[in-house]
Amino acid sequence: MQVKGVNLGNWLVLEKWMSPGLFEGTTAEDEHNLPLQLPKEVYEARIKMHRSEYITERDFTRIKSLGLDTVRIPVPYFIFGDREPFIGCIGELDNAFNWAERYGLQILIDLHTAPGSQNGFDNGGESGVCIWSQQPDEVEFELSVLERLAERYGQRKGLWGIEIINEPVLEDMWEGMHVQERYPAVDAERGARSKPNTIEFIRQFYLDAYDRIRKHMPEDKYVVFHDAFRLKAWKDFMREDKYRGVVLDTHQYLMMAELYGCEQTVESYVGYVKNLQKDIEEMKEYFPVICGEWCLFNSLAVGQDTKGGQTVLNGVEGLDQEVVSDERKKEIYNAVAKAQLEAWKAGNGYFYWSWKLLTDTVNTPGWVGWDSWDLGRCVDFGWFPVEEA
Amino acid sequence: MQVKGVNLGNWLVLEKWMSPGLFEGTTAEDEHNLPLQLPKEVYEARIKMHRSEYITERDFTRIKSLGLDTVRIPVPYFIFGDREPFIGCIGELDNAFNWAERYGLQILIDLHTAPGSQNGFDNGGESGVCIWSQQPDEVEFELSVLERLAERYGQRKGLWGIEIINEPVLEDMWEGMHVQERYPAVDAERGARSKPNTIEFIRQFYLDAYDRIRKHMPEDKYVVFHDAFRLKAWKDFMREDKYRGVVLDTHQYLMMAELYGCEQTVESYVGYVKNLQKDIEEMKEYFPVICGEWCLFNSLAVGQDTKGGQTVLNGVEGLDQEVVSDERKKEIYNAVAKAQLEAWKAGNGYFYWSWKLLTDTVNTPGWVGWDSWDLGRCVDFGWFPVEEA
Repeated sequence: MQVKGVNLGNWLVLEKWMSPGLFEGTTAEDEHNLPLQLPKEVYEARIKMHRSEYITERDFTRIKSLGLDTVRIPVPYFIFGDREPFIGCIGELDNAFNWAERYGLQILIDLHTAPGSQNGFDNGGESGVCIWSQQPDEVEFELSVLERLAERYGQRKGLWGIEIINEPVLEDMWEGMHVQERYPAVDAERGARSKPNTIEFIRQFYLDAYDRIRKHMPEDKYVVFHDAFRLKAWKDFMREDKYRGVVLDTHQYLMMAELYGCEQTVESYVGYVKNLQKDIEEMKEYFPVICGEWCLFNSLAVGQDTKGGQTVLNGVEGLDQEVVSDERKKEIYNAVAKAQLEAWKAGNGYFYWSWKLLTDTVNTPGWVGWDSWDLGRCVDFGWFPVEEA
Repeated sequence: MQVKGVNLGNWLVLEKWMSPGLFEGTTAEDEHNLPLQLPKEVYEARIKMHRSEYITERDFTRIKSLGLDTVRIPVPYFIFGDREPFIGCIGELDNAFNWAERYGLQILIDLHTAPGSQNGFDNGGESGVCIWSQQPDEVEFELSVLERLAERYGQRKGLWGIEIINEPVLEDMWEGMHVQERYPAVDAERGARSKPNTIEFIRQFYLDAYDRIRKHMPEDKYVVFHDAFRLKAWKDFMREDKYRGVVLDTHQYLMMAELYGCEQTVESYVGYVKNLQKDIEEMKEYFPVICGEWCLFNSLAVGQDTKGGQTVLNGVEGLDQEVVSDERKKEIYNAVAKAQLEAWKAGNGYFYWSWKLLTDTVNTPGWVGWDSWDLGRCVDFGWFPVEEA
């Protein structure tokens, strides 16, 4: 099994930096706080316009034309429209299945958020808050969302699989990334109650989720679980015969390598990825391994140290002018792309993060170099090698 | 001079069929009537979201990567924000100039609408109404918009030219297209007062506009005028030496050919275009000639007679299922593309209409076959030949 895919990030789960227009005139940093700052009808109008214009049929036709076969679609816990004030988006996912089946693509549904958040990242829905796993009723709610998704799409030709939950944090990542400093909580009380998930909880949640999903989904569709940022911690997990079609997902960004001390040179990046490839090969003995999120972005090509991928939104000043030549950027990106694609191929494939970024590197100060998060632009610039379908 | 370009249609001047989300929950058929049916803050939220997401930096990078060199940007008469309740969009055009200059493209600014409308088309801003040229103060207003555009962008490297006004109708087109039946007026009184422009008025308006624009714009930038649907009526026009850098723009759709009786076969389409090429060559003796709007769309590839390009929005039933095979569609589109591109090259180039269409041919009944209006999708499907930059 080899998957070549891309994430449709920021479509149904928002990230402010990827489409700033949605957040204009507010101080909200995340999806959770946005409706608290806008009149109901303005919030609704913005969300609905975004959903109807950000990803459409024509994205599916282009993705197919690039030789990719699968899209990973992050969805929020409120997808079924039962958690006010948030607006459901199951209709949008229905549309996506029809597009995928029309154009010969498949979908990995990725449950990307949980009420109270599983990681406290801005993209977890509520910055600086991580209280979901402390609330048994919300844990059960999350399982019910997975079950409903499996019921609705389990038999669809366009379904590749369902991912249980995106990036639940454990203690090491919570501390190492200084989550609550990077993403300060708006609600102090919820922030104070926050702590990382335990590995015991996550393992049990994954087992429960497997059962709830598999009940409705045949074994040729995959159940995907994220490594919780510990790629090699899963050798004794789901060894029983009943677990079929389970895929291990690891997310690997060069900005995180930098945070762990990787030097900002092409040689170091490539070396780092080659080591990672060994770990992937090791874990492939246990599960098919995909890299469900990665991109070409790195500080060397930006032209300044981004302190582990921090932006003006995190209070880190960015560049207003290009300092690296177009030729040099292409060299750097081509070199890291080659190493990364080789590593993912040594496993079972990849999903680029992300397909589309509306971030304006020309007209908004501080964003020079961030275009490499956008696979469409990477192809346009010749940074990402397109193998024809 | 040869221009290879594409229109950024429906970005700053709306067409309901190209992004239905904007018009959801209303019966408005055009941009003029939309704010009359929505609460002010909802109207604003929709418009602003649309403008910030529909066309962005990444469209410019892809257009450049396809080997095109120029974009034609339709703008409304209220671009400067001085005509309530409409919202200005000069900031968006400023952004576009910065993107164009960053990525090596140029812009043809196309003043696409006038208060009271110059044609009564849905894309003229007010369906079924054509009273602009009867109001001297509005004629002067339109000239002032052109002058302000020339002042603001005349010296920009990214400027290719300014088009005086899009598709003013004369009597023949007004009658032949049955404009007021195809696009019924909402305001009966304004509808009743409507009539086509006279050729005398349009000629004088073009002369006045030339002076107002050229005052601020050097002669290496083009002043473009539309042929008012009479390609060969301009042999005695602007013959004086003072008129420099003037380009004649003709819009040529196969759906109009069908309306004039062209048989719905590849041979007839190609024959029609070859005749057109002769007319273009004839007119090239007088002006450089561009085809500022055209596309691959035709009824043969759709699989049913569209009655001259009418849609479910005009009350003409469309198809819900594909009836022409993907292979056959590609054959048809490749053949007409070859003939059309040859014809435009015999002139001085072209702008495809349009770059992007959000119309969902899979999930909304009646739209099968309309994807060929979307240049991005035509490239994805291999319908449009991409010559590398």
